[in-house]
Amino acid sequence: MPTSTRFTPVVDSSRSPHALLRPVSIYDIQLTDKFLQPRREINRKTTIGSQYRQCETTGRIDNFRRVSGKVDKPFQGFYFNDSDVYKWLEAAATELGTGVDDEAASAIREMVQTVATEIAAAQQPDGYLNSYFALERAHERYTDIKDKHELYCGGHFIQAAVAHHRATGDRLLLDVAIRLADHFDSVFGPEEAGKRPLACGHEELEMALVELYRVTNESRYLSLASFMVDARGHKRIGGEWYYQDDVPFRKLDKMVGHAVRHAYLCCGAADVTTENGDTGFAHALDTQWHVMTGSQSYVTGGIGSRWHGETFGNPYELSSERAYTETCAAIGSFMWNWRMLLRTGEARFSDLMEWTLYNAILPGLSLDGEHYFYQNPLANDGSHRRQAWFGVSCCPPNLARFLAQLPGYFYSTSDAAIWVHLYASNRGKVTLPNGDEVTLRVETDYPWDGKVRVTVETAGDFELNLRVPGWCETGATSNVDGAVVSQPTNPGAYICLRRRWKAGETVELNLPMSPRRIESHPFAAENSNRVALARGPMVYCAEAVDNGGTDLRQLVLSDDAPVTAEHRADLLNGVHVLRASAKVLPVDVNRPLYRTAKSVDAPAGAQDVTFIPYYAWANRAPGRMMVWMRRN
Amino acid sequence: MPTSTRFTPVVDSSRSPHALLRPVSIYDIQLTDKFLQPRREINRKTTIGSQYRQCETTGRIDNFRRVSGKVDKPFQGFYFNDSDVYKWLEAAATELGTGVDDEAASAIREMVQTVATEIAAAQQPDGYLNSYFALERAHERYTDIKDKHELYCGGHFIQAAVAHHRATGDRLLLDVAIRLADHFDSVFGPEEAGKRPLACGHEELEMALVELYRVTNESRYLSLASFMVDARGHKRIGGEWYYQDDVPFRKLDKMVGHAVRHAYLCCGAADVTTENGDTGFAHALDTQWHVMTGSQSYVTGGIGSRWHGETFGNPYELSSERAYTETCAAIGSFMWNWRMLLRTGEARFSDLMEWTLYNAILPGLSLDGEHYFYQNPLANDGSHRRQAWFGVSCCPPNLARFLAQLPGYFYSTSDAAIWVHLYASNRGKVTLPNGDEVTLRVETDYPWDGKVRVTVETAGDFELNLRVPGWCETGATSNVDGAVVSQPTNPGAYICLRRRWKAGETVELNLPMSPRRIESHPFAAENSNRVALARGPMVYCAEAVDNGGTDLRQLVLSDDAPVTAEHRADLLNGVHVLRASAKVLPVDVNRPLYRTAKSVDAPAGAQDVTFIPYYAWANRAPGRMMVWMRRN
Repeated sequence: MPTSTRFTPVVDSSRSPHALLRPVSIYDIQLTDKFLQPRREINRKTTIGSQYRQCETTGRIDNFRRVSGKVDKPFQGFYFNDSDVYKWLEAAATELGTGVDDEAASAIREMVQTVATEIAAAQQPDGYLNSYFALERAHERYTDIKDKHELYCGGHFIQAAVAHHRATGDRLLLDVAIRLADHFDSVFGPEEAGKRPLACGHEELEMALVELYRVTNESRYLSLASFMVDARGHKRIGGEWYYQDDVPFRKLDKMVGHAVRHAYLCCGAADVTTENGDTGFAHALDTQWHVMTGSQSYVTGGIGSRWHGETFGNPYELSSERAYTETCAAIGSFMWNWRMLLRTGEARFSDLMEWTLYNAILPGLSLDGEHYFYQNPLANDGSHRRQAWFGVSCCPPNLARFLAQLPGYFYSTSDAAIWVHLYASNRGKVTLPNGDEVTLRVETDYPWDGKVRVTVETAGDFELNLRVPGWCETGATSNVDGAVVSQPTNPGAYICLRRRWKAGETVELNLPMSPRRIESHPFAAENSNRVALARGPMVYCAEAVDNGGTDLRQLVLSDDAPVTAEHRADLLNGVHVLRASAKVLPVDVNRPLYRTAKSVDAPAGAQDVTFIPYYAWANRAPGRMMVWMRRN
Repeated sequence: MPTSTRFTPVVDSSRSPHALLRPVSIYDIQLTDKFLQPRREINRKTTIGSQYRQCETTGRIDNFRRVSGKVDKPFQGFYFNDSDVYKWLEAAATELGTGVDDEAASAIREMVQTVATEIAAAQQPDGYLNSYFALERAHERYTDIKDKHELYCGGHFIQAAVAHHRATGDRLLLDVAIRLADHFDSVFGPEEAGKRPLACGHEELEMALVELYRVTNESRYLSLASFMVDARGHKRIGGEWYYQDDVPFRKLDKMVGHAVRHAYLCCGAADVTTENGDTGFAHALDTQWHVMTGSQSYVTGGIGSRWHGETFGNPYELSSERAYTETCAAIGSFMWNWRMLLRTGEARFSDLMEWTLYNAILPGLSLDGEHYFYQNPLANDGSHRRQAWFGVSCCPPNLARFLAQLPGYFYSTSDAAIWVHLYASNRGKVTLPNGDEVTLRVETDYPWDGKVRVTVETAGDFELNLRVPGWCETGATSNVDGAVVSQPTNPGAYICLRRRWKAGETVELNLPMSPRRIESHPFAAENSNRVALARGPMVYCAEAVDNGGTDLRQLVLSDDAPVTAEHRADLLNGVHVLRASAKVLPVDVNRPLYRTAKSVDAPAGAQDVTFIPYYAWANRAPGRMMVWMRRN
């Protein structure tokens, strides 16, 4: 088991006055499971290298080289392309701290070295860093704060620099980030201080500044982040809801506009609140979270209904076929929920993290690790396929950094307590705030099986808080070394086991994974009289390739049709499929679009239907896919 | 009864070799009904003047004046703003031919005179006419054929000039139009002829050129129109489906892209085919019509699902709340169906015209005649309200010209036959191709009552073809002077009464208007398990203002709940409302967006629900509106 001495949390709340939970280092958790870790290995061995090559061939890295005079080419691509390199760098740099040393690790080390050098060389004397505006467009700096993503790109760089520093101890990029942040701080801020009271049209810098504050202890960065959250909503940036600039954040009572932007804004506001306890932000975050989960989220956890503008829709505007549900928005929601969890320790946030991970983030990546979904519709005719790259390619490197950092989301600590949020076989070394090191071993076939065995390998006196997922509505049980735990194992809460643990003692959590039917609020017009199937943390879908020639839209799932689960080792790298017998509605090919209503059609027959986990669709022959099936 | 000697059809197919039907002059039909004619009077007395003032205050007419040097102002508004003036002019000019002489008529005459003079003075020596490109942008002429609407504007001018000429006999504008068309013909056309093989990004000129050909007999105009239909689809205009430029028209097998553009393209292609018998166009038109009506139309007849780009959606992509269904697109569909009807005499086209008139065009105009819907959603929370004008204001003057021309759509002739397409009380003077003049009187309370009495006031030997609407699926009967007609009165067809008519003989058509439930094809995801109510040619909706405090989304209409109709003279200028008792679904305000499916909710009670004709919604207090109600 490779180890690292570096403390590299995803979000460092370890000294945050208003955080209940403290983070555990990414490198202290070794995933050993057969579901997530293989995808992380593909990420490390295939995805990161493949994305590096995309960044090279599309000129994204040359854009930096031209700033330092190393290449003589025009700027290539979009003005926000730097950010893709930064997100990739955050992924790759994170891998440097794992202690793994193999061919892939060497290659990543070399790539990071190259990219870090090029970026550092592109910084301007005053700290400014942006390859689009560096040379011939220098006079256009900050002339289009609304659309040109300069602070957004800067934020992604700062996050990458922090990750690089934490993973390697090297200060090269961190110092670049500090100079950049100081530059931002010299330009933006309160008008009274002679600065520009603005924030970027695309949020991102806010959370980056808070993380840089956490690394450097420089409170100006925290203040600037807080200022930038409050700078919105006064119609100074562009005035539009698309940019979250029509209503001040403290008064914003729903999710509006560009989904990734709003999610990132909430990440930044949550980070600020975790540091300074701002109750106005905290209240607004809670309101927005409730409205988002109550009427603006897909059953997958995906957010952002509209293609046009990549925006949130109206309440209950949740078309399956036209769902936009950008992969980046799902990652944004996950990151936001993580910050809410660190602040509060409430299982509603970790529940949504898990659900979003399996059903809204993983679908973004092909099983081969080299193809990506930008949009994640919940119904499709088979024409929507993952692509190797995009002109606007935010999602691929966002997936790469997410997978690299994934172990950091599994555990937290609080005073004399260890919290387990996510389940997969792993070995974790958790340092309690008092300095005690505890090693835990988790064994499970999660996400396919809900038996989770946690072995405390180090004796100690601490609380073990295990999340009982909200999806496990009935039948969850727990025992310690075979003795049933007396407190109820409530879903959507942490079971709290406080004791003086002996080394080798085990906790068994049993989370029954019976297939479930999910129904939607009746105001979600398209889902009325439909059900989606789920099992454990997975949402399922039917895909044509498994289901013969019947148009999936003809299938009707009766409430009383048994749904069974079956493991299929041969399929999609091994999945549990669901099976049910569905009625088949006859649909005359000449049926008009509208007709005088007849009595409801009688089904013409029945058919066994196979459902696969939604994340795995579109990895085989193209064909129709549906999540929401007609009911009764 | 004012009369006019002018022959002014909406589309002059009277000498078209491939038209089955010949038109009747707009001015020969006097509507005397209580539903349509009052709206036409509002159009004449209020709307046209109000739109003229909008054109003046927004600088649309000054834009012409600056070209001729009469005002010294910058160009105001969008580059396509000329077209609004032209459409308004077509409406106003059409009113000049009615023979009505009152204060409103004088005012219109004066306005037309002003506008015609300004436009004529703005024409360039080479025939070019466009106020945006005339002066400082003269060198940019035709540099952006894809987006800058120059030929589109020209088309609208030509249509207005033709209408003006037909209504008044004056050649001022017609000669301007001829010079403009000659200019277009000198620039655009086959490459072999040294011309630019392009068409405008926004179709419109095609149908205008065919109509100008019909007035002038200049075959170059017909050839150019035909050429322009074929010029699309070769990726020379912009290459995108949005512009109908990705697939040649002859191979286009669905409705794609911007809905108004595609509908106007079909108008132009249908006009060409009517003149030259092009079977390739005819086949493509038929295919596109079947796909549009089979999977790309709303139950109102409205077309164009998507807000983004104002485009058609995928098959069965028919969200109610997000329906775009632009008023102009409905008018485009109506105009296309009229042209298909003239060519074929098939009732499917006149059926759709009637349905579109009542349910997709009239909703665009407020009862006061001064407020307009651009988009026509089929469900709304009450926030969508008609506006007095728009920055992009295509719909208001399109409504005005449509209402001015409406009488021209009621009748046609063919050899020794008179066709009646639409019903409303009126007196019509119809000239048969052999020169015989026949006067008909129609008495009916249509659209509220299906009894239609047609009196033949002039003796003669001809066929009377009366449309039996497709909506009247059962119970239609007809008799002549009290004697039941022996041939079956089939819905969606013309009943053909051939005889030697005596003066004063009457035909009675009885079209029972029982309230009906309409259901949708099951592939239209949002409509599954829903019904819409209709009666006669009207689609109904529920509006909050009539239905107390219950959220309309909680209402469930059982298949066995009786629906009754009631005339309400006091309401909305007099309408038939529908009433039914609906079950009320309990919806806990805290109900989560998703939950494990329970047995289907039992209704909490029942409520009498009032439905109004959809066209009349949003004329009272704002509130939720729904067309598609939950079923059972």
